[in-house]
Amino acid sequence: MTLLRTHLGSTLRSARVAQGRTLREVAKSARVSLGYLSEVERGQKEASSELLNSICSALDLTLGTVLVDVARQIKISETPALIVVDEAAA
Amino acid sequence: MTLLRTHLGSTLRSARVAQGRTLREVAKSARVSLGYLSEVERGQKEASSELLNSICSALDLTLGTVLVDVARQIKISETPALIVVDEAAA
Repeated sequence: MTLLRTHLGSTLRSARVAQGRTLREVAKSARVSLGYLSEVERGQKEASSELLNSICSALDLTLGTVLVDVARQIKISETPALIVVDEAAA
Repeated sequence: MTLLRTHLGSTLRSARVAQGRTLREVAKSARVSLGYLSEVERGQKEASSELLNSICSALDLTLGTVLVDVARQIKISETPALIVVDEAAA
């Protein structure tokens, strides 16, 4: 099942890793605990809207930018996989 | 402050109203309480990812479709307002 928190966490983690920053740095900047950020990134905890804003801000991203990426990921996950038929083997 | 739950609630409410359906109908179909759906729609409660899926499903919408709309709304809310300068009056 496609879950918002899974894709949100994955986008936040990718952004942090792309910036070469540690969980500790971003958690400190966002004023959230390291454990909380880690759980949010792994899709194990629902981030409250306020703390999501703090995390986005700590990553120098707007909520809109993050959400556009999350929406795109979810759209892709909802698209049925293309089935390739190998006619030569049929 | 732009909050995810505010925009999510507003998108869900608009979709329900556009379908001419009541809170009671959609809450029943989504298997959530009427009070919960009402609070989510008004941006007063964070919907869990699982219940968000149930609500989207009750509205015959995919999570992706809802999120694309929410992301668009948030992007617009983040865009600074255009200041119109009336040169004739200057």
